[in-house]
Order: sequence, then structure tokens, then C-alpha cells
Amino acid sequence: MEYKVGKYDVAVVGLGHAGCEAALATARMGLKTVAFAINLDSIALMACNPSIGGPGKGNLVREIDALGGQMAINTDKTFIQVRMLNTKKGPAVRALRAQLDKRAYSAAMKYTVESQENLDIVQEEVVKILVEGERVRGVVTKTGGIYEANAIILTTGVYLRGRIVIGDLSYSSGPSGLFPANELSKSLEELGLELGRFKTGTPPRIHKDSVDFSKMIMQPGDEIIIPFSYSSGKIQREQVPCWLTYTNEITHKIISDNLYRAPLYTGEIKGTGPRYCPSIEVKIVNFKDKMSHQIFIEPEGLNTKEMYVQGLSTSLPADVQIEMTHSVKGLENAKIMRFGYAIEYDYVNPTQLKPTLETKSISGLFLAGQINGTSGYEEAAAQGLIAGINAALKLKEKEPLILSRSDAYIGVLIDDLVTKGVTEPYRILTSRAEYRLLLRQDNADLRLTEIGHSIGLVSDERYKKFIERKNQIDEEIKRLRSIKITPTEKTNEILNELGTSSLNSPTTLEELLKRPELNYEKLKIFDQERKELPADIVEEVEISTIYEGYIRRQMAQAAQFKKMENKKIPEDIDYDEVYGLSFEAREKLKKFRPISIGQASRIPGVNPADINVLLIHLETRKRKNING
Amino acid sequence: MEYKVGKYDVAVVGLGHAGCEAALATARMGLKTVAFAINLDSIALMACNPSIGGPGKGNLVREIDALGGQMAINTDKTFIQVRMLNTKKGPAVRALRAQLDKRAYSAAMKYTVESQENLDIVQEEVVKILVEGERVRGVVTKTGGIYEANAIILTTGVYLRGRIVIGDLSYSSGPSGLFPANELSKSLEELGLELGRFKTGTPPRIHKDSVDFSKMIMQPGDEIIIPFSYSSGKIQREQVPCWLTYTNEITHKIISDNLYRAPLYTGEIKGTGPRYCPSIEVKIVNFKDKMSHQIFIEPEGLNTKEMYVQGLSTSLPADVQIEMTHSVKGLENAKIMRFGYAIEYDYVNPTQLKPTLETKSISGLFLAGQINGTSGYEEAAAQGLIAGINAALKLKEKEPLILSRSDAYIGVLIDDLVTKGVTEPYRILTSRAEYRLLLRQDNADLRLTEIGHSIGLVSDERYKKFIERKNQIDEEIKRLRSIKITPTEKTNEILNELGTSSLNSPTTLEELLKRPELNYEKLKIFDQERKELPADIVEEVEISTIYEGYIRRQMAQAAQFKKMENKKIPEDIDYDEVYGLSFEAREKLKKFRPISIGQASRIPGVNPADINVLLIHLETRKRKNING
Repeated sequence: MEYKVGKYDVAVVGLGHAGCEAALATARMGLKTVAFAINLDSIALMACNPSIGGPGKGNLVREIDALGGQMAINTDKTFIQVRMLNTKKGPAVRALRAQLDKRAYSAAMKYTVESQENLDIVQEEVVKILVEGERVRGVVTKTGGIYEANAIILTTGVYLRGRIVIGDLSYSSGPSGLFPANELSKSLEELGLELGRFKTGTPPRIHKDSVDFSKMIMQPGDEIIIPFSYSSGKIQREQVPCWLTYTNEITHKIISDNLYRAPLYTGEIKGTGPRYCPSIEVKIVNFKDKMSHQIFIEPEGLNTKEMYVQGLSTSLPADVQIEMTHSVKGLENAKIMRFGYAIEYDYVNPTQLKPTLETKSISGLFLAGQINGTSGYEEAAAQGLIAGINAALKLKEKEPLILSRSDAYIGVLIDDLVTKGVTEPYRILTSRAEYRLLLRQDNADLRLTEIGHSIGLVSDERYKKFIERKNQIDEEIKRLRSIKITPTEKTNEILNELGTSSLNSPTTLEELLKRPELNYEKLKIFDQERKELPADIVEEVEISTIYEGYIRRQMAQAAQFKKMENKKIPEDIDYDEVYGLSFEAREKLKKFRPISIGQASRIPGVNPADINVLLIHLETRKRKNING
Repeated sequence: MEYKVGKYDVAVVGLGHAGCEAALATARMGLKTVAFAINLDSIALMACNPSIGGPGKGNLVREIDALGGQMAINTDKTFIQVRMLNTKKGPAVRALRAQLDKRAYSAAMKYTVESQENLDIVQEEVVKILVEGERVRGVVTKTGGIYEANAIILTTGVYLRGRIVIGDLSYSSGPSGLFPANELSKSLEELGLELGRFKTGTPPRIHKDSVDFSKMIMQPGDEIIIPFSYSSGKIQREQVPCWLTYTNEITHKIISDNLYRAPLYTGEIKGTGPRYCPSIEVKIVNFKDKMSHQIFIEPEGLNTKEMYVQGLSTSLPADVQIEMTHSVKGLENAKIMRFGYAIEYDYVNPTQLKPTLETKSISGLFLAGQINGTSGYEEAAAQGLIAGINAALKLKEKEPLILSRSDAYIGVLIDDLVTKGVTEPYRILTSRAEYRLLLRQDNADLRLTEIGHSIGLVSDERYKKFIERKNQIDEEIKRLRSIKITPTEKTNEILNELGTSSLNSPTTLEELLKRPELNYEKLKIFDQERKELPADIVEEVEISTIYEGYIRRQMAQAAQFKKMENKKIPEDIDYDEVYGLSFEAREKLKKFRPISIGQASRIPGVNPADINVLLIHLETRKRKNING
């Protein structure tokens, strides 16, 4: 029997990494929000690896933070190790990554959402979306509860018709012994949404005391901890190491010999898996020449003996999992506590979404996270935040927030999803970003705090701090530009000692800083009066100065790019009236209905010639409108 | 496909409160043990109320501790409030109860079992018991893993064919969004075990910030914290309060009006529920004249806003749950985070068990916890510990540990189960104990530490401490007995001031202590030289002295009782040859096969006349054996 529970502005379905950000965003933006989880003990469950961040992903976390999201703050609260990766490479690919205490992270996020004003948390399975005309009206839960809502954000993760596969065993299930959501998919299909099937997987978890770490390479945390959140301040904490080992020819032979029992190759698994996080059996098959693969042994937390075998994701039968694990150096006697498994689930083809993450066909229905075909906690959280923000902005009748590919990794992620669609679980990669020198992890706050503040997710206090930081950076760059060093015998002697050439004419400190042999620290000798600045300010000053030329070039490209993004295509355009479009382009455009020339140009099958035709059509139309 | 994993001495199926104690016991007693849980994140899940202890139950926890179990230690680690109940009543009914942080308790127990030597923890569903002849051989898991074992302890809780019911909604499920175990029941039936169906339930959980505590009565913790475990030492910790409110006529009317939708009355639920922890709808129906029932609002932990509505357990439809919750004073605006539900599950009729908790029909198969038809964390843990101990003793070919009804509440619990069977979920009550003045919570260590030490579960170090405590008590009693107070004018004046009568002849301090007007503290004036003793020693001295007469009488009764318990009935007895038994008694005895005359006398349907016949038969048989 159905019964009415209450009226909300927003209903969020699922409280994983996407759902938590979405629900927090709408509630913090003042909207009465209700959020559902099948099991409240599994809020923000880290069902896969025990880490957050890394190349591209770390940038997403920083961007989430700058916009006023939660992931970075709670990561800082619960990490047990932090590393800045690629420190010897350029600033564009530097990446922060943290190992977390899984249980602590989940508990912290549960407490965050529970403590959020305007947000009600309910343990219920949502089985149906209520729609009136082409607008959402609310959701119905398994017990029959009707929660009215003007916006609904679906963040169902791998729960939709979840099916676990291990060898020849398969059964309906959510992740890790939890219930799946088997009814909601039908409701989505009835709404006309096109669903697909993906799979993802996890490796075995092993018992710490059964590992021979003496045969592995220790991976300690950084001595100086750099937090994810700009609001975390200085953190000092004891860290625990990870451990590196490798698969070998015996491992590979065990897997090859058992491929005939691998669900990924027997046809048992039909969903497509993540290319950039493949199962070990896929790695063996696809990279036949590679004699070994890296395996990281990572703690799942502080007060647990469980360790995660990063790199050994698999759905091979349990007996093969035991055998192959034991073939790895240091894991000869490893005791498996949980077997690896694959999980298949329904996703919604994301080309059915606007860049706001609202579905094109149903007003007020937003999707975020794995339901959009992505993989990864960070990708999920980023979408959750954007879906939440846009749901709130829509209900407040404000302009939506669409980050462009030149604004943020989040922009790249969402544009890729909604424009190109997915053929496999999508993971963010630095190579997906055209302007990655602009989209650095170190300047995420400089790029996005302003936006976070204007939409009301970044507090005035935090914004003030941000402005101070920004000013410090700007002023220091200005100051370096203003100080000229005169070429005297003394100064040239010092410069030569520092391994760089003499000056011929007066030169600013900014110019000197660009010399590869020098850095901010070394310039102190010419700049005795300067104030001591925090390390993050110095870093920003150095990067901005040293890479100034490259950055300027990328900014010019980005400006060009944005021009196309800003050429909006009217919603009422009739592509059948656009003369000269190729047949394929016309079909694609009719189906996708891109919001801008920029987006149109990235739709597979739409060529530059089509874009020209479209530009001319829009120009003509505009003149007609002005003149007519 | 089945595959062999390894050989173990003991396999424990389930890692709830029974399973954890069982697995720890066998591993600590040196046996190679493997233990399985459907979800490792749910080890020692407190699926129901957030407290441990209380009348009878608190005694069980203390007894578990004295025998070397874990529950008391981990309770002390994670409690957020402690109260000694019934302090104004006699020592027999005093009871310690703690409110716990559920998540912390579960995490602590997970870490305890993970850290235990000889114990492997595996996330797997056990689907089959392997038996050879009439002996267990091992278990088979869902992935096909064969774990050989010479003893198996089943502690399946409410997971066996679990089915959740809320109003007209019902579905196959374990507790709280977790998977049920649907396959093992079949295996048990194939082994010839008789299964029954019970139900239990939980109340709604509500959000702390939606409760108006100003309308309730605060229930704070005790100022002086008394820990559960004898090994915990002094504990100082900030405590959080519980809150008391009441149902009222409106609540009762809402429930009465909706009884036609209550699964307990529509026939939807067939399993019998716990009489001493009934659903609110049952309370309303069974106690029509009662105008209100107590409701305790209890925190589920420190870092959560969830609160448990103790007393409002229900399987009424969700909409009725909302309405009736809102009718309670202080809960007018309460937001329900989880709805209450009933869960039906399979149990095994415990009369099929020996007092060791081993099944009579299958050698090496032990059962403990809710599978035996009990209710409650403490009852489960107690059985788990005893099943573990007896599985270990059996494999070591030692005498089993059978606690009698005069030794411990654990003895009462198990004797009740295996002798009388269950017709509803069994809960321990102080009224079930014949010798409750002996089975006090304060003397559990004095009763059982010796046993815990002799079987190897209590360390030498802890045993030494215990002996010290015991000696201190004995010596102090001896000392009080040895000091005589002479009746002088001065002493009588003091006695009169203390409100008690004068002495006529020299009187020992022990005698004086028995006077209701005096206590140990007050006697100090006659006993200036005495050493300061810890409070627990003084308490023991006082109770032993004050209640000496009653205790002596109960001890005499207990000795008499034990005589009958010690009259063992030979395993090969043929009841058809016992001349003079009533038809009913003969059938019952043939079916139950009691181990002693004592146990036989408690089987329903076996009368004193039958016991006499049996005693004569045994006497005759003994003489024949001696003479023949």
C-alpha cells in the first residue's frame, strides 16, 4: 500500500560517493532534501580500493573541494597515508593520492550527512520514479512511501540489477554482501531511458599477518603531508606504508591455463569492464608480452588486518584466485579473507543527459556517478556535486553551472560523458584534458572557489581566506616583476656559482626565476628583504612564472575554445531546416541536441564542415530575428 | 565446482555474537579454526538494541568474562554509558548494563577475531555441512570451497532463510539490508535435524535532532563506572544519556485501529516472537488495561545521529510506524531513519542437543546462539563460548564442560534449552535461576575463573590476579571473624549512635556486620587498624557476610541438586528395559536421552515416580555390573 510521507525539494537515491555530495550540495544550498540508502551502515562505502586521488582523480577531488564539496575534507580526516605522485614530472601531472581507513571514511561521511541541516536520511530502497507529464514528481520506496520532490538525483552505483560473478557462480547482489536494487531499472525503462550493462570488479583481500613484506618494496607516505582540502590546515599524523610486489610467469601461466573458466571469456559476463582498471586476466590476455604486472598491497584501515591486493582484480573462480595469489612473491602463504568478484549492473547511456546532468527527456531527473557509466569514487563524487548544484539552481530558477573543458577536470569528465557517451566504464585520465597545464591540482582553488562561493557552497570565511591566498600569489609575482637585479661583478659571480649564466642588462627576479638552474629558494640571496611565504604560495608563484609562456598559450587556446562553447544553440532549433548538414550529422544532432557549437563539434560523426553549416545557419537565424 | 581449501580442526559458521566467542575459544585453546561471515563488515553486528547487559544478561556477560570470553572486554572498550541497575534491591538482582557505540563494538570485535592466532576469517556463505557416517567432515561454501573440519559450530543467527516483514511487504533477507543464508537450512534438514520458525523484530531508528528531549526524563550513566570485565581495570570516560518517554492512549488507538494490517495478526508472520521482548502491537493486545508503556530513546553511538526507540519494536506498516511514533511525547516531529521490521528465520529445536551444545545425532556438529531458539546478544555469546570450549575439549579428547544450573546462568540457559526445548525465542531471566543468590554478577569470577583457567582460556597472569582477589576476600572475612568487640560503655554508646542496639557479650565484627543498621564502612570506628580495601572486595565481604545464612541454605540446596546431576545415566541405557516407567516418560526419555537423573527430572512429562523407577533401575544395574 502506498502512503504519503512528505514533500521535499530534492530526493537523492543512493548514498555512495555521488549521492553524499549531491545530497549535501542541495541541502547546503537551502533545499529540503531527502536521501535514501539500502543500508545506512554502507553510506560512502569504499567497495573497491582503499585510496582516493591519483592522476586526474586527485584533481577532481581538489576541484570538488574548491566548489564546496565534502570528499576532500573527509579524506583528510581519515587518511592513513598521503603521497604526492609525479613530483619529478611537470606540474600538470602531479597528483595527490591518499590511502584511507575505509571504515573511518564511511563513518565520517555518514556523520556528515546525518548532521547536515535540511537533509533527511532514510534507509529504504527506492523502487519507482513518479513523473507527471515530463516532470518528476517524486519517488516511491519499497514500503510504499511516497516522497514528493521537484528534483530527483539518481546515484545508484552498482546496485541496479547488480549481479556478482565469481567463476561459474553468479547471483543477484549489490556489492559486498549487500542487497541489489532490482526494481528501479524497470521504472527507468518505462520512462524511456536507454539502459546498458557494465561490469566492474575487485581483487581479493588478504590477511596482513600472512604476507611476507620482506620480499616486497615498501611505499611509505610523504614526510610532509599535503592535505586535499584547502580548509584542512596543517596535518601531522603517523602514516602506514603500502607494499609493492609483482606478478610473474607462474602467475600468468595459472591464469592462462584457467581462462576457459574465466567468466569474462566464457561469455558469462556480458557487461563491458573498465579498460583502465582491467582484471588481471584481461591484462594477461591483452599484454601477452609483459612478463610481470605491479601489485600493491594496501591496508584497508588502521584497526583491521585486511589488505587490498591492488592490481589483482578478478572474477576467476575462487580456487584459481588462491593459486594465483600464492604465486606472487611475498604472497606465498597469503590467506584470502574475501575473494575478488565481478559485479554487473545497469547504467544509463549518458548521452541522454544535458551537461547539467539532468536527463533531456524528464525535467528534474538528474543522474550522477556509476549510473552514468563511470568508474571511480572521485568521478562519482564530482558528478554528484554537479548534479546537486544544478538541481538546486534549477529549483531556484537560476542559471545552471556548466564547467567547460578548460575550467576543470570535472568539465572534461561531464562533457566526455554527455557528448561522446561511453562504451566502457569511464575513468578520468590526465590525457583526456586538452588544457591540463591549466587544470592543475595545485590551482583548483584559484580556478573554482569563486564559483563555489557564488553558488553558496563556499562560506564567506573560507572565501576570505582564499582571497588572501590569491592576493599573496598575485602580489608576490608583481613584486618579483618589480625588482631588477643589476649586472655587477658580485651578482654575476653568484649567478655563476648557482650554475647559471651572467647578466648583461638589469633583469627582474621574475625573469631570473624562469631560468631552469634557479628557483625561488635560490633567489633569496638577491632578495634578502622578502617575507617568508607559505610553501603553497611559493609553489604557485614558481609554476605561474616558470610555465608562464606555456600557460599563456593554453589560455589563448582555451579562450578560443570557450568562444565556441559560448555560441549557444537555441533549444528550439529544427535541424531538418539546417540546409547542407550531412545525413549522419543531422541524425546525431537531432538525437543529442547539443547546447553549444562547441559541444556539437565534439559529437562523434559531426564534422568541421557540418559545424560551418551550423554556424552559418545560426548567423542567418540571428539576423532574421534582429531584422524580422 | 568444488575445490579443497584446507584442513582445519574447527569451522565456525557465522561471526555474530555467538560465532565470535566460539571461534576465539577454539583458536585460543590451540585449535586451527576457520570462521565464515556473509559480510566481513558485519562481524558482531548489533542488529537490534545498542546495549549489552541488564538483569540476567549482565550475569551472562560477567560469566563469559570469567571463563575467558571476549564480550565483556570489548563492551568495556566501546561503551558510552554504564549503569548498575537495581542497586536498591538485593545483590541477586543487581545488574550491570552498558550502552554501546554499535559501530565501534563491531569494529573492535572484527579486529579481535582478525588478530587471533590460529583463526582464519573468510567472507563466504556456507551452503552445506559435509558428514561421513555420523561425524562431520567439513563445510562447503557458496564458491565451492571445501574446508575440512573435525568440529563445526553453527551460529547462523537470523540469517537462515531470513525473511523481513513490514506491513504487507515481505522479502527474503538477512538483517538490515544484508543477504540471508538460504541454502544451509536444506543441508540441516537432510541431516535429519528438526527446524522451526521464529521471528524477532526491531523498532524504528530516529534522528536525534528531531527529538524533543525537554519532554523526556534523562537517564544518565553512573558516576562511578564499574566495568564488565575483571581485566579492564579502572575506566573513566565521558558518558551520554538515554531518555525515557511513554506511549499513550493515542499511540494505543493508532495501533489498535491498524491491527488488521499487522503481519503478526494477519497471519503473514508464522514464526513465534519473543514473549519477553514483544512488539508494541503485541503489548497493546495482550495488556489492554495498560495505559502506557515505557519507551527509551538510546543513542546508537557517539558519531551518529541515529537513535534507537527501545520499546517500539514493530512490524506494522511504515505509515503506521510514522503515525504511532509521532504520537509519543517528545517524538511529535521525530524523523524515522530506519523503519522497524520483523525478521523470520529458521532455528533448530535445541532438545536435539547435548548439554555440550553438540547435536545428539551428528558427532562434532555444535550449535550456538539464535539457531538454538534464543534471543539476545548475551545469550548468543554465552552459547558460542560454551560450544567453542566443548568443541575444543572434544577434539582434545578431554571431559566436556557442562555448567550446572547452580554454577552459572549459562548453566541455567543451556539446561533450559536442551532439556525443555523452546516454544518462543528464549531470553534469560533472573526468575529462571533457582539459585540466584549464588549466581550473582559480582561473584561470577569467584564461581568460574578457576574453570576458565583450567581449560586454558584465562591466562596465568589474570588467574594470579584473581587468586589475589579471592584471598583478599577470604582473609578479610576471616579477620572480621577474629576480631571481637567487648561491650564497654563507649562501644555501646557508639553502636546506639549508629542506630543499633548495645552489646551484651563480646561480639565479632562479622556478627556486627550482619546487623541491618551497620555496614563495613560504619564498622571502621571499631577497626581502626584495618587496611583500605578496593570497593569490589568490600562488596564481596559485605554480601557474603550479610547474606551468609541465605547463601548457606542455597548452597545446601545446590549440593542436593548437584547430587542428582552427578547421577549419570549410561549412554547405552535401554529405556524399554526399565520396568515401571509411564508410557509418556519412556517415550520422552527415549527421544531426549538425558545425561543425568537431574536432567531427566526436568524433562516435561517425566514425573517424580518415573525418576524413582529410573533410580532403582540404575542401582540394580550397578549392582549387577559389580556382581556380574
